[in-house]
Amino acid sequence: MPAKTQDIVARVLARCDQLAQFSELEDGVLRQYLTPEHRAANQQVAQWLNDAGLMSWQDSVGNQWGRLPAAKENVPRLILGSHLDTVPFAGKYDGILGVLLAVELLSYFSDQAPLPFHLDVVGFADEEGTRFGTTLIGSKALAGQFASHWLQLTDRSGTTMADALQEFGLSADQTSAATLNARDILAYWEVHIEQGPVLEALQQPLGVVSGIAGAKRAHIRIQGQAGHAGTTPMHMRQDALAGAAELIQFIETSARGGQHQEVATVGNVNVKPGAANVIAGACTLTLDVRALNDADRDALVLRIEAFAQQMAAQRQLNCEFDWYHEAPAVLCNNHIQQQFHQAARNAGLQIPTLPSGAGHDAMAVASVAPVGMLFLRSPGGISHHPDERVIADDIGLAFNVMKEALMLQALK
Amino acid sequence: MPAKTQDIVARVLARCDQLAQFSELEDGVLRQYLTPEHRAANQQVAQWLNDAGLMSWQDSVGNQWGRLPAAKENVPRLILGSHLDTVPFAGKYDGILGVLLAVELLSYFSDQAPLPFHLDVVGFADEEGTRFGTTLIGSKALAGQFASHWLQLTDRSGTTMADALQEFGLSADQTSAATLNARDILAYWEVHIEQGPVLEALQQPLGVVSGIAGAKRAHIRIQGQAGHAGTTPMHMRQDALAGAAELIQFIETSARGGQHQEVATVGNVNVKPGAANVIAGACTLTLDVRALNDADRDALVLRIEAFAQQMAAQRQLNCEFDWYHEAPAVLCNNHIQQQFHQAARNAGLQIPTLPSGAGHDAMAVASVAPVGMLFLRSPGGISHHPDERVIADDIGLAFNVMKEALMLQALK
Repeated sequence: MPAKTQDIVARVLARCDQLAQFSELEDGVLRQYLTPEHRAANQQVAQWLNDAGLMSWQDSVGNQWGRLPAAKENVPRLILGSHLDTVPFAGKYDGILGVLLAVELLSYFSDQAPLPFHLDVVGFADEEGTRFGTTLIGSKALAGQFASHWLQLTDRSGTTMADALQEFGLSADQTSAATLNARDILAYWEVHIEQGPVLEALQQPLGVVSGIAGAKRAHIRIQGQAGHAGTTPMHMRQDALAGAAELIQFIETSARGGQHQEVATVGNVNVKPGAANVIAGACTLTLDVRALNDADRDALVLRIEAFAQQMAAQRQLNCEFDWYHEAPAVLCNNHIQQQFHQAARNAGLQIPTLPSGAGHDAMAVASVAPVGMLFLRSPGGISHHPDERVIADDIGLAFNVMKEALMLQALK
Repeated sequence: MPAKTQDIVARVLARCDQLAQFSELEDGVLRQYLTPEHRAANQQVAQWLNDAGLMSWQDSVGNQWGRLPAAKENVPRLILGSHLDTVPFAGKYDGILGVLLAVELLSYFSDQAPLPFHLDVVGFADEEGTRFGTTLIGSKALAGQFASHWLQLTDRSGTTMADALQEFGLSADQTSAATLNARDILAYWEVHIEQGPVLEALQQPLGVVSGIAGAKRAHIRIQGQAGHAGTTPMHMRQDALAGAAELIQFIETSARGGQHQEVATVGNVNVKPGAANVIAGACTLTLDVRALNDADRDALVLRIEAFAQQMAAQRQLNCEFDWYHEAPAVLCNNHIQQQFHQAARNAGLQIPTLPSGAGHDAMAVASVAPVGMLFLRSPGGISHHPDERVIADDIGLAFNVMKEALMLQALK
């Protein structure tokens, strides 16, 4: 790695450490929407931008922006970015890394020939939804999808989002001012840690994201008949947990057989009455189903529901699905994917394509602009945890690939 | 049903209601060992015995006894009985019915020609183990199996069994005085509700018990790797719950395939971390395995353990069994079983044979005497619950069968 890139990587890592200090927790990282820590992080990022001679501003929902202006004024903007908020006991890189790498890219190009587009960086204010329970607030506001009823959502202490905006120095009346016009946006490019084990397993530092999986989530309730574990013969049971086990097995097998990166997860089971010597009378399972394509995901959901009803009928159980969450899949722009691959080759790398199973701001921005995403490998696949890590060399490679991609874009 | 039998049934049912009034709970039935309610129930049963002109006494661990003496003095005793204590929010018949039916049988034979054996009734003081966590205290004391370390067991309020015996008017030094000599006991016959659904499904009022299943219980710990439900492809998972589901299925299938009334139950699953969007990192299951024959049960246990290790290896999980309870199976005496069947035929009934999956005092008494058990059907298979019921006509039939069995015994 050339000395200059080494400096960039060292600065990015040091700044990730610095932003992690703006935390609501003494013994971990937590930075929620519209808190003093949110303000402090925005101000710090603005300071770094200004130190590099770049413009900075905060929009009407609290997203932090920076800009390297184009030579001409009336040209669209290419936006680089990610989010600055965190979950409780977070790592230091989820979201943050993409913002700070973008700051470095603006800074780098500020020393080069002017670009034919404004090069913007955005640090979205709330992607995780930790405080008010609704995710992608910052990027949805950009995309004109800020829902007015959100203003009445409350945090744990009972403060509404409207009041929190006021306390932050913003106004509940002005959220729509954060919305951008689709024709003003050339593209949105997001660099993010993978938060999964795929790149590490492939021994690849980086990957181009093909799309962001759409998710559906349900609570599955299985009702059987409790009974004495000693006195009820096997053939006379209506064991809700045995039915649940059959369903969990089917869910796993069906998702494994999928051709389009389907994943399906039962993450929890709750058994009633839940005693060692009593046959399970009822179970509740959580189900999370994702695929890169909504039709594939929905086909998998239908197969699971059909099997569940058949299983329930055979076992004289009752089985109900309560679907409480649905987000459509979003594909990354094909041209941008190719451009990232070409940029990687220009930087001397051959990198794979992979889907994102987790949600990202790019999902929301995709409704107003072509989006592209570049993943950095996550050691151990770990994220949303203090052990979240990133490999220094991978940051240098990501910087180079994005730099090459911007150079390709400038030549268009 | 003849008028005389109707009177007996009505009296038994009324007395079950009366004993249910001796409860520690205002809104349900609970009668624990060495409580004022235990004393009151014993005194009431003694009163009923005395009213019928029968002897009564309480032994040194609080079991309530009654006797119709034989013509001669130096003859063995045939003991009829069951237990008088209850679980919390119990029904009115579990144990109680067997004691009160025995009181009626003693009363009936007191008007007949003298028997060649003492006919005893016992109301065991603690079968359920509700207060001190150890079961079959009354019948184990009879069988010389009262363990001296039990005296240091404490109830929820911290009272030791030794102190509770003292408060009840008994002595911790005298528990061995409750032990009977094997050569003095002709047999122990227990009438009990089935607590399961088998007789009801067969549309049979009564059944002869072939034996009491031996039980083994384990906690099974499965350790996998937590991960993001969206970003971890199916083939890269170490999903502890998916492994648990495979194991639960195998347990059910193996027990179903058993030839000797094996039952195996997973009654609870606990998942960590247990979130909808996180792959299960670890699970704990309860396992309860029973069979009429310890060798069959242990063979089933070995099959389950072997499968679990194979499953764990294939899925890169770790699986451990912690066996925390074991009780051997007890067979009912074959001659007594035949005698009960003959008695049933003499009473005009053809009744089935069935195993007991639940434990009973007869298990403990079996170490010093031949034991026999007669089950009454349990509507809905329900017990240990306020909805526990018994059919009046079935009580009349049980009385008749036991009467006939005693007459056969007298002729021997």
